[in-house]
Amino acid sequence: MGIEQLRVEIDQLDENLVTLLARRAQLTAQVGAHKRTQGLPLYAPDREASLLAARRRQASAAGVDPQLLEDVLRRIMRGAYSTQEKGFPATGDTQRHIVIVGGGGAMGSLLKSFFERSGYPVGVIEKADWADAKQHIANAGLVLISVPIEATCTVIAALPELPPDCILADLTSIKRAPIEAMLRRHPGPVVGLHPMFGPDLRSLVKQVIVVCHGRGQDRYQWLLDQLTLWGATLHEEHADRHDQAMQVIQAMRHFTTLVYGAFLHTQNADLPHLLQLSSPIYRLELAMVGRLFAQSPNLYGDIMLQAERLPQLIIAYRECLDELLAIIQAGQRDTLIAHFVEIQQYFGDLAQNFLRESSELLRKADDGRDLPKLSQDTDSPR
Amino acid sequence: MGIEQLRVEIDQLDENLVTLLARRAQLTAQVGAHKRTQGLPLYAPDREASLLAARRRQASAAGVDPQLLEDVLRRIMRGAYSTQEKGFPATGDTQRHIVIVGGGGAMGSLLKSFFERSGYPVGVIEKADWADAKQHIANAGLVLISVPIEATCTVIAALPELPPDCILADLTSIKRAPIEAMLRRHPGPVVGLHPMFGPDLRSLVKQVIVVCHGRGQDRYQWLLDQLTLWGATLHEEHADRHDQAMQVIQAMRHFTTLVYGAFLHTQNADLPHLLQLSSPIYRLELAMVGRLFAQSPNLYGDIMLQAERLPQLIIAYRECLDELLAIIQAGQRDTLIAHFVEIQQYFGDLAQNFLRESSELLRKADDGRDLPKLSQDTDSPR
Repeated sequence: MGIEQLRVEIDQLDENLVTLLARRAQLTAQVGAHKRTQGLPLYAPDREASLLAARRRQASAAGVDPQLLEDVLRRIMRGAYSTQEKGFPATGDTQRHIVIVGGGGAMGSLLKSFFERSGYPVGVIEKADWADAKQHIANAGLVLISVPIEATCTVIAALPELPPDCILADLTSIKRAPIEAMLRRHPGPVVGLHPMFGPDLRSLVKQVIVVCHGRGQDRYQWLLDQLTLWGATLHEEHADRHDQAMQVIQAMRHFTTLVYGAFLHTQNADLPHLLQLSSPIYRLELAMVGRLFAQSPNLYGDIMLQAERLPQLIIAYRECLDELLAIIQAGQRDTLIAHFVEIQQYFGDLAQNFLRESSELLRKADDGRDLPKLSQDTDSPR
Repeated sequence: MGIEQLRVEIDQLDENLVTLLARRAQLTAQVGAHKRTQGLPLYAPDREASLLAARRRQASAAGVDPQLLEDVLRRIMRGAYSTQEKGFPATGDTQRHIVIVGGGGAMGSLLKSFFERSGYPVGVIEKADWADAKQHIANAGLVLISVPIEATCTVIAALPELPPDCILADLTSIKRAPIEAMLRRHPGPVVGLHPMFGPDLRSLVKQVIVVCHGRGQDRYQWLLDQLTLWGATLHEEHADRHDQAMQVIQAMRHFTTLVYGAFLHTQNADLPHLLQLSSPIYRLELAMVGRLFAQSPNLYGDIMLQAERLPQLIIAYRECLDELLAIIQAGQRDTLIAHFVEIQQYFGDLAQNFLRESSELLRKADDGRDLPKLSQDTDSPR
């Protein structure tokens, strides 16, 4: 066969692939309908694992790279989860209102849509509705606080009285102060939640939500069950330990990213030129810096300002910077390498895992790239 | 149909998918054979684009998410490129040796395997072979320097005389100094190359190689053609502009990552605990830090030590840090937000692109995650 004829055959196979995917989507939609009827969770890890294992074995036998097959199936399953996600049954009382304070924001809107698709009546209180808050809350089974971080405790303190069995919960990225404020305000069930994802999701499958227990878990268990049913993975944590970790994971990382952005700006770095010269990994490094600046200055500013230990963490970071700068200025190669090796030992096996994980991710990123064949940079010497 | 029966049908479809992929791999292997025979480049962007467009249209018509189809096809095509990659024809003279100085290193070995698969005889000179270097080089058509960055110029200066038409080239991540050293050492064709990827690749398709012209392009054009035939994208750049950009992209980024690693170490941060609490984006942030420490302390130390402007860039970075720290310590919310907004304007539309790109990448990362259903952290309050 000539190359053109081979391509005709490949096109035919790819058409069959589309047909196969369409049929598969019909079947998984039916599976989703069954899960809804029977109140089964959307994410079925055992089924997923056995399905993948069986197809990997078959692929090896057929001379197909099993990793290729697994990657393709995982991508197809992601699509299946989002088509299956149409109103899961309610684990709580759908006669009672879910009231989302700040439900007009991005995260509040996301949660609102999930509750609504499970059949709960959802009310939203925004600043303008504050005068009617008492009325909104009268029949609430859950009041969920989803307001900017710096307003959380004030809003909680200003809440009207809740029904005694109503759950009071929040979504703030710090947990100790809001939970204390909620326990003070409301004698009923209280729980702190921190969704570890942004509001741009369509499915909660495999997403982590941190749960910090407040009071009366038996009365808010239905809410945790509901989140699990939507596909989320719950991770229980002490509020203090959560807050300590978040200052390192979140506030410090945002701060150093902000500094890097400021640095590129003061250097007047030519970003499109840097991108042209960037390998996939440096492109991703730049993307991880730049993505911060597509987001809300208020939200990220407040995350930093609310992190009590941030100044002291920054000072510790600057001490590390000064020490390494002095080593580089003095050209002390052996000392620099000794520091590097010491941190290597601290990271241990994780470093290799991280390298593997990020390299695989970069290969996936490459799949999506379309590059020009040969750059014709006219001001280059010939 | 019940859920079990639906799953049996899904399994049947997935088995058909494996069969389809096996058949497709046979066809693309034949396409690869044709490309080799006819000296066509491996990466055919026009064919790829038209194939994707046709299948996206068909998917839409069949009610399948076109993005799902495109992601699946791109992943399949990545597999096809690596199976097609078996010895591309040589664009140069296969009677002449390719001599790789430092060819035992990771990048040298990668290039060696590409040259060998295209039928060139490849010789390697390591430190131990230096005494015989003259003999190795006597019949060379290309001498490629692939030694640690701090040794590059010394090694170039110490080279024995090359055949007059032999190409002298290097792979160092800085370009001005090595190119000057090569031009001094050798009156024949000279070219500087900087592969923008690590040595863990199996295919060069869509990977960027920066080309800094030295002297006699007509006599090294066959080398550039060879790289293109292997699938690489060449980007021509002035050595000075390249080096300036690299100090910002590479050396500074490595330095701040090193500082972050040192910071986590001095804080004695509990990395597995941080990972448990991490959303996909923070997991990736940690991975981008940790991956540095899976790599060679010598290589990364030298990249930093060889970057002449690095100390002055670090000082500029520290000034940004101090300014922002003072704002946070003073709790000046408006000033902090004003700084944020200013950097937002500098990033412009790129910030949104970066957010989109990294979010899509995170969705792909999610495909591969297997999470426990519910964490049972026994020291959590109940």
